[in-house]
Amino acid sequence: MKMTVEIPEHKYNIHIKKGLLADVHNYVELNRKVLIVTDDMIPTEYVETLQKQCPECYLATVHAGEASKCFIYLQFIWNALLENGFGRKDLLIALGGGVVGDLTSFAAATYMRGVDYINIPTSTLAQIDSSIGGKGAINLGDVKNIVGAFHQPRAVFIDTDLLQTLDDRNFYNGLAEAVKAGMIGDASLFELFEQMPVEREAIQQDYIEQIISKALAVKKAVVEQDEKETGLRQILNFGHTVGHAIESAGELEGLLHGEAIAVGMLQVTEDAAIRERLAAVLSKLNLPTSHSYAPEQLLEIISHDKKTSGNKINLIQVKQIGKAEIVKLPLEAIKKYL
Amino acid sequence: MKMTVEIPEHKYNIHIKKGLLADVHNYVELNRKVLIVTDDMIPTEYVETLQKQCPECYLATVHAGEASKCFIYLQFIWNALLENGFGRKDLLIALGGGVVGDLTSFAAATYMRGVDYINIPTSTLAQIDSSIGGKGAINLGDVKNIVGAFHQPRAVFIDTDLLQTLDDRNFYNGLAEAVKAGMIGDASLFELFEQMPVEREAIQQDYIEQIISKALAVKKAVVEQDEKETGLRQILNFGHTVGHAIESAGELEGLLHGEAIAVGMLQVTEDAAIRERLAAVLSKLNLPTSHSYAPEQLLEIISHDKKTSGNKINLIQVKQIGKAEIVKLPLEAIKKYL
Repeated sequence: MKMTVEIPEHKYNIHIKKGLLADVHNYVELNRKVLIVTDDMIPTEYVETLQKQCPECYLATVHAGEASKCFIYLQFIWNALLENGFGRKDLLIALGGGVVGDLTSFAAATYMRGVDYINIPTSTLAQIDSSIGGKGAINLGDVKNIVGAFHQPRAVFIDTDLLQTLDDRNFYNGLAEAVKAGMIGDASLFELFEQMPVEREAIQQDYIEQIISKALAVKKAVVEQDEKETGLRQILNFGHTVGHAIESAGELEGLLHGEAIAVGMLQVTEDAAIRERLAAVLSKLNLPTSHSYAPEQLLEIISHDKKTSGNKINLIQVKQIGKAEIVKLPLEAIKKYL
Repeated sequence: MKMTVEIPEHKYNIHIKKGLLADVHNYVELNRKVLIVTDDMIPTEYVETLQKQCPECYLATVHAGEASKCFIYLQFIWNALLENGFGRKDLLIALGGGVVGDLTSFAAATYMRGVDYINIPTSTLAQIDSSIGGKGAINLGDVKNIVGAFHQPRAVFIDTDLLQTLDDRNFYNGLAEAVKAGMIGDASLFELFEQMPVEREAIQQDYIEQIISKALAVKKAVVEQDEKETGLRQILNFGHTVGHAIESAGELEGLLHGEAIAVGMLQVTEDAAIRERLAAVLSKLNLPTSHSYAPEQLLEIISHDKKTSGNKINLIQVKQIGKAEIVKLPLEAIKKYL
């Protein structure tokens, strides 16, 4: 399956197919310098499958985990490019989860003020969400994604076979973003979660491609209309204002991104019937439905969030499954959702 | 005088007037958080003139000099923004030379993936050249501008009164870029340099606004046609391939940027009559006309330059004053110009 994302001047394809990793050379010119950025939890055979296709290949491996979305690794990638004489026409490949993708996107956006990169997401979270949108970033201290750049990939390759080596926690973690996509933009996707069996094996075999395609279709439609996140794109942040705060509060030992977003969505949902359906889907996916942080702590974090402008905050709410609204609130009013 | 730069989605004004520094509030909304980025050689009264116009003002002062275009100061500015709670609607002001301008532009491009900044250049080099074009960057090791981003300022304010506190060396250094502009795009500007008196006082009093306006007009015409430096914009690099190498070779104790570009222009000019006229103008402006580095050292540096792609290099040549050509050469062929 192939989707095309169309942003003025930045058209690119998203390819979705089992076994795609061995086929990248059929879609992208790999006959140039290539730097594969990956992490130390990605199976060696994935890296090798890619290396075989690149005549002049370099490798930059970062530690797995959110802490790698930092300044030090950004520098590490810049230096790998510089030391190996990469020029403007060369290529970066992100092979990994969201951390690898965000770091690679930001490095590619800034090395020589912009070089090509492609994205090969290996986690459900990255396949469903972070691999498209072109939002590269790193964290500063405990503030997530505070510096970065918009830089669209040349192409995205979603090979669902790569999910087989993912542990359960990370497998379900990513599905939270697909639940979000259903909530804000596609009731049929939400209903698919309600109807499908509970076993991971069955989901992975028979449902995952459909889930990813539907979730990406929601994201694609929004991103195309608003590349730089000035308006509509904010609806993709449903569950994220509270979710990010929960994620930050836990630092590196707390909830994963999708888990925190799961709780964040539930916290801001007021309609009782929707809450109940959402909670049921989250539980089915082994995702958490509550948190244990003090509201004051979360409020403090939110007030430093980049989506806060002055004392107002744009909160995304879903009052009907499949439709999102942007509600502008005083910062204080967010308390009741914490 | 006012010029408007028009790049798709990024229209902004360049204001050129004596005494403009005290007037910025009449052109730009300063009633928001403002971070002034400056260096420790900028007179305090300039900073104060600006501070008086900004109700909520913060200051980030870097050390004067090229060494500040580094990672550490980029982080320093990001942290100043983060710690003072800057949001997407707030403003950075670059008050200084090219180093301050490039650093501020890159920081503004990447903080929250892009916030507003304005440029108030205080050196001839920055007023003539680096303040427009939206090319932010830092250096890595001794490789100049290797990471950065394109991010246009909201406005540029050129107050020629600010040049009065500049030392002679820096005053003339910047004029090299105006000589370049004449060489590649405006024969009348080049002739102005040939005709005008030799005293700095007279140049500053009667010629500088005209020089700056004409030089910016050349740059503006080129930048508007080619924002991302894929084609035509390369002609702005006349003298820069060799010049950058000379600048890098001298590290921090060698020639200033304009001085190195002066030598670089002369080195790549083959026509004897043009060489003679160019050398005369450079000498009149107290700019150097030769260098003392080994050609092998310069070639080594050029082969790492970001404008080198594979084994070819695009060299800019002027065979008629006021007109530039892009010549694609094997890297080896550059030797004769070193």
